[in-house]
This record gives sequence, C-alpha cells and structure tokens, in this order.
Amino acid sequence: MNTIYLDSAATAPLDMEVAAGLLERERSHFANPASSHPLGRKASAMLEDSRERLARQIGASPEEIIFTSGGTEALLLGICGSAGESGGRIAISAVEHSAVFEAAKTLTGRGYELVILPVDTDGRVTAEALAQHIDRQTRIVSIMMAQNEVGSINDIAALGRVIRSSAPRAKFVVDAVQAFAKIPIDVDALDVDCLAFTSHKIHGPKGIGALYSRHQLKPVMKGGGQERGQRGGTQSGPLAWAFAEAASKELSAQPDLRKMRDHLWAALKQRIPNLELVGPKLESEQRLAMNLNVMVPRLPSEPLLNALSGRNLCASAGSACTTGEFSKVLTAMGRKSSEGAFIRLTLGRHNIDAEMDEAAARFADAVTEISALYL
Amino acid sequence: MNTIYLDSAATAPLDMEVAAGLLERERSHFANPASSHPLGRKASAMLEDSRERLARQIGASPEEIIFTSGGTEALLLGICGSAGESGGRIAISAVEHSAVFEAAKTLTGRGYELVILPVDTDGRVTAEALAQHIDRQTRIVSIMMAQNEVGSINDIAALGRVIRSSAPRAKFVVDAVQAFAKIPIDVDALDVDCLAFTSHKIHGPKGIGALYSRHQLKPVMKGGGQERGQRGGTQSGPLAWAFAEAASKELSAQPDLRKMRDHLWAALKQRIPNLELVGPKLESEQRLAMNLNVMVPRLPSEPLLNALSGRNLCASAGSACTTGEFSKVLTAMGRKSSEGAFIRLTLGRHNIDAEMDEAAARFADAVTEISALYL
Repeated sequence: MNTIYLDSAATAPLDMEVAAGLLERERSHFANPASSHPLGRKASAMLEDSRERLARQIGASPEEIIFTSGGTEALLLGICGSAGESGGRIAISAVEHSAVFEAAKTLTGRGYELVILPVDTDGRVTAEALAQHIDRQTRIVSIMMAQNEVGSINDIAALGRVIRSSAPRAKFVVDAVQAFAKIPIDVDALDVDCLAFTSHKIHGPKGIGALYSRHQLKPVMKGGGQERGQRGGTQSGPLAWAFAEAASKELSAQPDLRKMRDHLWAALKQRIPNLELVGPKLESEQRLAMNLNVMVPRLPSEPLLNALSGRNLCASAGSACTTGEFSKVLTAMGRKSSEGAFIRLTLGRHNIDAEMDEAAARFADAVTEISALYL
Repeated sequence: MNTIYLDSAATAPLDMEVAAGLLERERSHFANPASSHPLGRKASAMLEDSRERLARQIGASPEEIIFTSGGTEALLLGICGSAGESGGRIAISAVEHSAVFEAAKTLTGRGYELVILPVDTDGRVTAEALAQHIDRQTRIVSIMMAQNEVGSINDIAALGRVIRSSAPRAKFVVDAVQAFAKIPIDVDALDVDCLAFTSHKIHGPKGIGALYSRHQLKPVMKGGGQERGQRGGTQSGPLAWAFAEAASKELSAQPDLRKMRDHLWAALKQRIPNLELVGPKLESEQRLAMNLNVMVPRLPSEPLLNALSGRNLCASAGSACTTGEFSKVLTAMGRKSSEGAFIRLTLGRHNIDAEMDEAAARFADAVTEISALYL
C-alpha cells in the first residue's frame, strides 16, 4: 500500500527539482562564503543573491535577513537577541511553538516575567486580549502568524498596532515558520520587528532557516562573526539557494492545496458524518490552505493515529515536536482530550488530488476499526 | 584555467557519492524524526543509525552524541552547556577558533574569568604551560585537537592527565573540527568530557555537526526537546546519514593526502628555494596530513593571495572565519606579518596528484609577479 504523506506541517518533502539544483550547486558553489578566493566569492555571491530573493519575498532588505540553522534558532535569536539586560515582561501566546516557550523561559532566567496571552476558540489572539495583557513594562511580544496545529492565521498587522500603542517599548517577534510562502507577507505593512521562517516547511532542505530583523541583534552564537556578527558558523551558498528556490515555488501552489484540502474534508465528512472540523472554517481567509484538523467524537487519538499509520497514512495528533501529552494548543482553544480523537492532516506540493479520496477511505477504515475496539 | 582547490580546511567539497546518497535519502527518509508515523520512524531509525556510526568512530556511545548545526554550535554547547552557575575560570589556548573565543566571552559575561594558554612555536599547548595556567578554580579547559591554520596536533591525552591532576573540577572540551576522521580518536583513551566535530570539513554537507558529551548539558537552544532535551530544532535523517557516510570514507584517505601534500611541498621548495615551512615538520606525527602552511620571505600576504586567486589557485592566509588582520594563531606562535607572506594550502579527497605540480607552478609564477612589484 503506497504511503500517503499528510504531515507537511511537521516537515515537507524536499522538492526534487530543488534537490537537483542543490546538488549541482554543491559541485560549483561549495566553498566557504567567507573565503576570499574565486570559489569563495562565487559561493558568497550565491548566498547574497539568495538572501536578496528571500528578503524581496517578505518586503525586507537583504541586510535585514540573518541565516540560521532553522526556525528554532531563528526564534531563539529573535527573542533572546532582542532582549535587553534590564528585564521587563515578555508576552507570548498560549499556542506558540515550544521553541518560543523555551526561548521565553531562557529570559525568565534573566529576570523577565512571562505573560501568556490567551487565544480564542480558533486559536487566535484577539486585539482585546492582547491589549489587556501588555503595557509599558512589556519588552517583547511573540505571536505566531499561522498556528502549526490548526492553521489559524493571526491578524498580525492589527496586533502590531495594539502593541505600538499599548506597549511602545516592546519588540514584536513573529513566528512565521508555518506561514512563510503560504500567505503573502510584507514586513513593512505588518510593522513587525523580527520574523522567523524556515526552509523545510516549504519543501526546501532541512538545516537552514532565517530571521528577519529590523534592529541589530545580540548574537546567541557569535562564532566567526558571519551574518554581520549576528550569527556565527560556516554559511552554505547551496542551502541558501535551495531555501530561496523552494520559497519562490511555494506561494503559487496554495490555491491547488486549498482545493485538495477541501476535497479531502468533503470526502472524509461523507464517510464519517459525525466528524468535526477543528479550528477556523475552511472557507475562512484566516486558515492556511494546507491545514485540516479534525475530531472524531469519542475515539482515543493514539490508537486512531496508529491505525492510520498501519494503513500508511502519515498524519499527526499535533506538533511533531511535542509528544505524549494532549496538545496544549487544543487545550488553550478550550478543547479536551475526552471529546475524541484529534487528527491533523496537512498537505504539500507533493500531494496529488487522487490521494484525497484514498486517504479518506483509509481514514474511514481506521475509524471503523478503532470504533469496534473502543465504542 | 581549471581551478585547483587547496582550501579544504575552510570547507571540503561535498563528496559526490555522498551527495547522491543524500539525495536518494531525501526522497525516502525526509520525514521529521520526531513524527510517530511510519515515515517518521524510518527517518528516526536513519538518524539513530547515523548517530551510532559516528559514535563508534570515536569510541563513544550513541547517547553521548548530540547533533548540532555545525562546529560553532557544538563548541558553544560544549562550553556554555558545561558551565555551572557559580563561575570560576575558563582556560582556552591562544590558537582556538573564534567559535571558542566567543563562547568563552559569553561565560566571562556570566562571571567567569578567562585565562589564555600560550602555545609553542608549532602552535601546540605543552603540558608544562597548561599546568602553570590551571588550578582548582578552573571549571572549563578548551583546547583544540588539530590547529586549523598550521595543522599541529595537540597531545590531548597528555593534556587531559594534567587537567585531571591540576584542575580536577574542570570539564575538558576539545575542538576536533579539523581532526575528526583525519586522525584516529578514542574519547575514552583521551579522557575528554566534550568533543566537537563537523561534517563539512570531511566532505560531508554543511548544516550538521555534532558534540560528544559524557555529561548532561544545559541546552543553549532547547526548542522542541530533541536530542534528549539538549538541542532543539527539527533533525534531519539524511544530513546525519551523509555526515556518517563522509566520516567513514575520510580516515582511509589520509595516507594519500600525506603523499600529495609532501609532493606539493617538494615541488614548491624546488621552485622557490627560500620558501619556509610554517608549523610542525611534515614528517611529524603531530601535523595533519592535509595541511601545508608556507611563508614566502619579504612578500606581503594579501597581494600574493590575490595573485594565486588570479591563477585559479584557491588557498588562504588563515582561517576563513577571520579576515583582514594578521593571524592571531601565527602571532601566538611568535610569527610576525613583516616576515613575509603566510599561505595555507590544505588538501582534500577531491585533489589529484597531477594538481600538485600545477599548483606549485602557479604558486611560483605568482611569487615572481608579486616579487617584481614589491621587492
């Protein structure tokens, strides 16, 4: 039975055209971009060209883009690198990725007070809730652009305006790991200070991510002073190229993903009438096109997920980065594990329309199996 | 004119067999190793198998290996992750990589006192010098195994014994970025606490490195709790595989590199009789087989290096990670920029014997050109 991969929010398969180009550039542009010889300059030119392409995609200047090893490091750098020595408050939403929670915890160890922003039943931070939780003591606010489990999209521009008026001394750090190249982003229009994004969620290679920052950051890892002294470590021209190339292909694929995702939902709902949608309505502009999150009433999550695995249907019960316990994202949205089995199905450019009916059939089959055991 | 790349100490070209295998595994093992579905488990199995292969190569257990983004991060984690809260002294050699200097500086910001260990004229730390600079207040000692500019190899086992007796409370962190897979390493025989190494110096891909640690580390980047809570961020099975694969090929290539390196030196010396060798004798066991560092008396470094670049001969004046100023490594060895042009030529598995005479001819030609301008 062929594998159907519906877990692109965890990681999206490397685009094979991008991979071929990467391989080619590993041959021609492999050198250390910090080297002054011809091959070093060639690698450096590719690195800088890739930086410019990525910058352009979010309306930034190339010098505002810092390459990192991925999203986790970009978020750590954005949060810890923006923090001053004098402490204050850091406010993060209740549904942030663990990378943000851990970075915030690092700051609480340095005298910061952590404030958790509640979310609505769709997993979004409202302007009202934000206004109630921040003030002049707030130094950093970190809110994600698109939620990794339920795909809900925050109104970053509106939240930014609340921050500017209620917490004028705060830096606004945005986790755009799930949103980048899936929805249009313009950092100037959004008026954010830092924005983190990564390559492997958009069918680029693992091992590279980036942070947009409009202010100079205190480096977490200074090393050899690469990335204008803000992030040390040997840079890779080919990885940067692959990141930029993957990004340029991703945005235009979204309408197709939306159609496939809606098809999948319809096919599932037809087979499992009591299936419930979790998170924003599918037709909403405030939900990622590639995200579906469903709840099968009264069934337990783990056995159902295992039954899906047994049918070579790759899905997840939440973030791949947190296992074992009930999703804190769903908890923050007011959901309970006792309601049923929550399953996230996320699409990517590798998926084809024909997989959707097949995936729905396997899903329904797994639900039948687990229902017989548990109901 | 074909390019001759003699800068593998900066970065070694990706082995094309490894690259092809990496590409194949990006297709079959791309998933997030933290995912519980079949593809996640497949990626995780590859990650753990690669961890075991790398561990075996240095006589470690798999659970003592932590994957990082590269050498800089591994060194930061080894040094900052081993540091306690109560301060004390950190001793590092004068010829450490800037990644170690910067990590040490991070600790001086947390109340640690930095002690610089002098080196001998070959760039090595002697047991006597070490004994004089450490004591019961020393909490961390960081000494590199092989020097990145002159290729000198420290007697880590002997230095470790000095540390155990003179500074029994110190953790011994070893930068093996240049040494790994180039000389045999057995962490138990060496009795080190942490050892950092990386993939791109041994013809593996950029974007992955590792730290051996026999104690639990305080994470620098916790994120989703990957790597047993010691390093967050999505892991890559294919990158780990390529790292392990490159490592398995590198050690056996050293005798050939030594022969080529000696050939290059002989060819250079024949054409430029006043050329001087910098660092340990070539026949010494205390020099990396792939490293040559030479000094052309009375010539300036930068113009000579540019003349080499103009002849498509890629070499360097020192570490790619520090540019502009005279090498602090050579300074610590008692050398002066006024002596002449110092050029590092480092070999890799991509080099072929025929390139050595050609490289020597281009080098001599460049010396003639620059001598006419400056002497």
